[in-house]
Amino acid sequence: MDNLGVLFLSELVGTALLVLLGTGVVANVALVRNKGFNGGFLMVNIGWGLAVFAGVVVSYASGAHLNPAVTLGLVANGAEEFGNAAMGTTVAVSFVSVLTYLGAQMLGAFLGAVVTWLAYKQHFDAEPEAANKLGVFSTGPAIRSYGWNLVTEIVGTFVLVFVVIGFGRNGDTSGLAALGALPVALLVIGIGASLGGPTGYAINPARDLGPRIAHAILPIKGKGSSDWGYSWVPVLGPIIGGVLAGLAAIPLLPVLG
Amino acid sequence: MDNLGVLFLSELVGTALLVLLGTGVVANVALVRNKGFNGGFLMVNIGWGLAVFAGVVVSYASGAHLNPAVTLGLVANGAEEFGNAAMGTTVAVSFVSVLTYLGAQMLGAFLGAVVTWLAYKQHFDAEPEAANKLGVFSTGPAIRSYGWNLVTEIVGTFVLVFVVIGFGRNGDTSGLAALGALPVALLVIGIGASLGGPTGYAINPARDLGPRIAHAILPIKGKGSSDWGYSWVPVLGPIIGGVLAGLAAIPLLPVLG
Amino acid sequence: MDNLGVLFLSELVGTALLVLLGTGVVANVALVRNKGFNGGFLMVNIGWGLAVFAGVVVSYASGAHLNPAVTLGLVANGAEEFGNAAMGTTVAVSFVSVLTYLGAQMLGAFLGAVVTWLAYKQHFDAEPEAANKLGVFSTGPAIRSYGWNLVTEIVGTFVLVFVVIGFGRNGDTSGLAALGALPVALLVIGIGASLGGPTGYAINPARDLGPRIAHAILPIKGKGSSDWGYSWVPVLGPIIGGVLAGLAAIPLLPVLG
Amino acid sequence: MDNLGVLFLSELVGTALLVLLGTGVVANVALVRNKGFNGGFLMVNIGWGLAVFAGVVVSYASGAHLNPAVTLGLVANGAEEFGNAAMGTTVAVSFVSVLTYLGAQMLGAFLGAVVTWLAYKQHFDAEPEAANKLGVFSTGPAIRSYGWNLVTEIVGTFVLVFVVIGFGRNGDTSGLAALGALPVALLVIGIGASLGGPTGYAINPARDLGPRIAHAILPIKGKGSSDWGYSWVPVLGPIIGGVLAGLAAIPLLPVLG
Repeated sequence: MDNLGVLFLSELVGTALLVLLGTGVVANVALVRNKGFNGGFLMVNIGWGLAVFAGVVVSYASGAHLNPAVTLGLVANGAEEFGNAAMGTTVAVSFVSVLTYLGAQMLGAFLGAVVTWLAYKQHFDAEPEAANKLGVFSTGPAIRSYGWNLVTEIVGTFVLVFVVIGFGRNGDTSGLAALGALPVALLVIGIGASLGGPTGYAINPARDLGPRIAHAILPIKGKGSSDWGYSWVPVLGPIIGGVLAGLAAIPLLPVLG
Repeated sequence: MDNLGVLFLSELVGTALLVLLGTGVVANVALVRNKGFNGGFLMVNIGWGLAVFAGVVVSYASGAHLNPAVTLGLVANGAEEFGNAAMGTTVAVSFVSVLTYLGAQMLGAFLGAVVTWLAYKQHFDAEPEAANKLGVFSTGPAIRSYGWNLVTEIVGTFVLVFVVIGFGRNGDTSGLAALGALPVALLVIGIGASLGGPTGYAINPARDLGPRIAHAILPIKGKGSSDWGYSWVPVLGPIIGGVLAGLAAIPLLPVLG
Repeated sequence: MDNLGVLFLSELVGTALLVLLGTGVVANVALVRNKGFNGGFLMVNIGWGLAVFAGVVVSYASGAHLNPAVTLGLVANGAEEFGNAAMGTTVAVSFVSVLTYLGAQMLGAFLGAVVTWLAYKQHFDAEPEAANKLGVFSTGPAIRSYGWNLVTEIVGTFVLVFVVIGFGRNGDTSGLAALGALPVALLVIGIGASLGGPTGYAINPARDLGPRIAHAILPIKGKGSSDWGYSWVPVLGPIIGGVLAGLAAIPLLPVLG
Repeated sequence: MDNLGVLFLSELVGTALLVLLGTGVVANVALVRNKGFNGGFLMVNIGWGLAVFAGVVVSYASGAHLNPAVTLGLVANGAEEFGNAAMGTTVAVSFVSVLTYLGAQMLGAFLGAVVTWLAYKQHFDAEPEAANKLGVFSTGPAIRSYGWNLVTEIVGTFVLVFVVIGFGRNGDTSGLAALGALPVALLVIGIGASLGGPTGYAINPARDLGPRIAHAILPIKGKGSSDWGYSWVPVLGPIIGGVLAGLAAIPLLPVLG
């Protein structure tokens, strides 16, 4: 396979795993009769963080973006190539390679959500509330207000992408490179706990839109609306936040000599 | 001792420790009058994850499979030897060496559960519900449906074995090798939180069957049924999931040059 | 930019991120209708710990003090320069450089709290209790008693600064340097869980005073008092604790050889 | 100072910090009006684990035993010297050096508990239940039965010392050495969650006896009995468990190659 194919597969597998485990922990906590039912928001935060951990571990060939906001943030930051230089899987940043990443992320997120539905099939069937079923797939605001919801998603994604770029910039002097996939997992736990209250922290357009499409397509018993009216917020907010973080990192995260 | 003996002992000790700490956290949370009574599902997830951590630490001589699904998944993935090359304790993969691993894992899991019973003896005696006693030893489904329960166990074990293989494949470029036993512990916490809701995540045939045999044999006061009708699900599901992961990893977790 | 400017920006950005995520987790847990509402004190501890993690990651150029008690504790300990030697961003310890750190920390803490208010704007508006709004910004005692509250803040900050100096002293022989920003995050989680009960563990004058000023200035709906009567305790207590720790570390944390 | 003095001070400071943070998290969870009141057993487990983390960080000069069961377990395992070889602070194992470690641990544990009382002074005064005050200092059984309580303490401490020896044995091949004080912290969190239900996991004679003496001596308002009838269990049990682990590790944790 050529490098673009490797990168596509890598992002697809990683994002599928991320979304399987991420939507899975919400299913466990939100759907009736589960052993983790009502397990609390911290459990959701930790579940999503470790979902990122697992996804990053298996998508090493592509550099594990798993998130269009990360891909676009890196472009805004001035990245010249994507992939894993140590493995020889790099490609130049271009319209085609960016689309390859975004397409793989969207498809992976869709597939991960389908598997969550299968793993929790009995509990989706037993759950009486349609809103809880959609909540497994996609985020929704605690207090609906598109403008402020957008602000919250921008802030959360800004933190994600800004610190992710920080990992790379300070790797040599801080020892974080030795921790592999762990730092970003910890960061996502933290963002969830600290900025997830108002909107449920999509902070990733693929994570939200891919499962929402799965929710719309799958024959889920008693599923109700897919809430398309809100669907643009967790897409646009993370893109804005990611791009702003990529730009802000240029002066604020120095590489000095 | 010859290498096969070392490997047997290593897997036995590691799996015993894994199951002692793993069934222990369930005992703490499920049996009356314990200090951790009703401590929540996240505590169970963390307890099992750190049980894996401890078990992996002490079974370094055998490579710390501690799980027939891992052993069989590695075989499906094309492993040619088991053990620890740095220590000179490797053996070729063969019918005998595979059986050695599986036998040690089963015996270790049985012994670990016996020790948990001793450590929690007073609480087993004080507990009024027979189902809670079995729940310490073995998993059971939240909604009984053998087909869907099997699906859930397949998915959970697929994730476990797939990412475990990923740790090995990406070790050189991701820094995860420096974390030793920690990554798999984090992975097991994540799988428990995210995919443990419907079946209690056996994801390991020895972890479930060994303690179930202990439950059947031990003179536990008021113990009730060992639920043999369900017992094949957490054996077959993890084996299928592990083997599928081993096969899927061949094309999906590339070693490029 | 000269080094002093780099250090100012680095401390400002790191402290802003620390306070954004730290006050954010309190907002999530304390303000009505949030998804993390009533998430528990452990969630607050973990949120603050990971806030420190993120802040430290991005302020590598200045050595990531993010806290006047750390800066002054290092001075008391005999530090001769601040900054990151590997990056060439060091400056000599002097009245000006200390003030630069402290000013950046104060301004960063103020800005971080402003962003938290924006991210949680709808929930500040919906919250009926003025005390809960102030609680997002600044700490307050569970039982008001300035003397004992001061003792608690001194003890907590002593532990923080003493162990932080310990990280540096034992780095070569303990392997902790390889963990980057993680050790201090774990330490802060531990101090919060263990010593945060009576006063809510400011353990950082900037973390408490900067957001309190933001609370006083911002047009927060129904905000009530900023409790200036207590405000000196979480400033003075941490300064005393940090300086004592810096002095105690001289004989108690040996560099032998 | 000679090496024995350095080791004494190192164990004293480390154990004091361990017990300060460890008894502190119990105070936070158990005493009325604290911000962490009723925070749950997992919070207690995490608090104790991170207490070990902090204590180990600062007692690098002595090898951070912080626990007579560890010191005696290492002797049973055949240790020939204590201390930190890289720092040149080693001494031969002898009656005097063992007593030095044990004495420092006991004194440190006493001092740590005194500081916890000061940090939580107002909450000790406000707490109506005498049993909750003792519970901050020392462990007690959920179901009193000296024989079975002893079994539980033996099992818990066996796991602690056995895995601690495992860290050393497998350091070179597992990468755990790079994690410094973190592995033992994770282990203690796991033992607490998994084996702490029946007795509250002393697993350390100094941790239990030192604070119990402090409880007996300090002028704590309405303190009630120090429960000396139980006090020998968390001393004898951990010593037996530690020594058994040291002996068992000789054949079971091989150094091959």
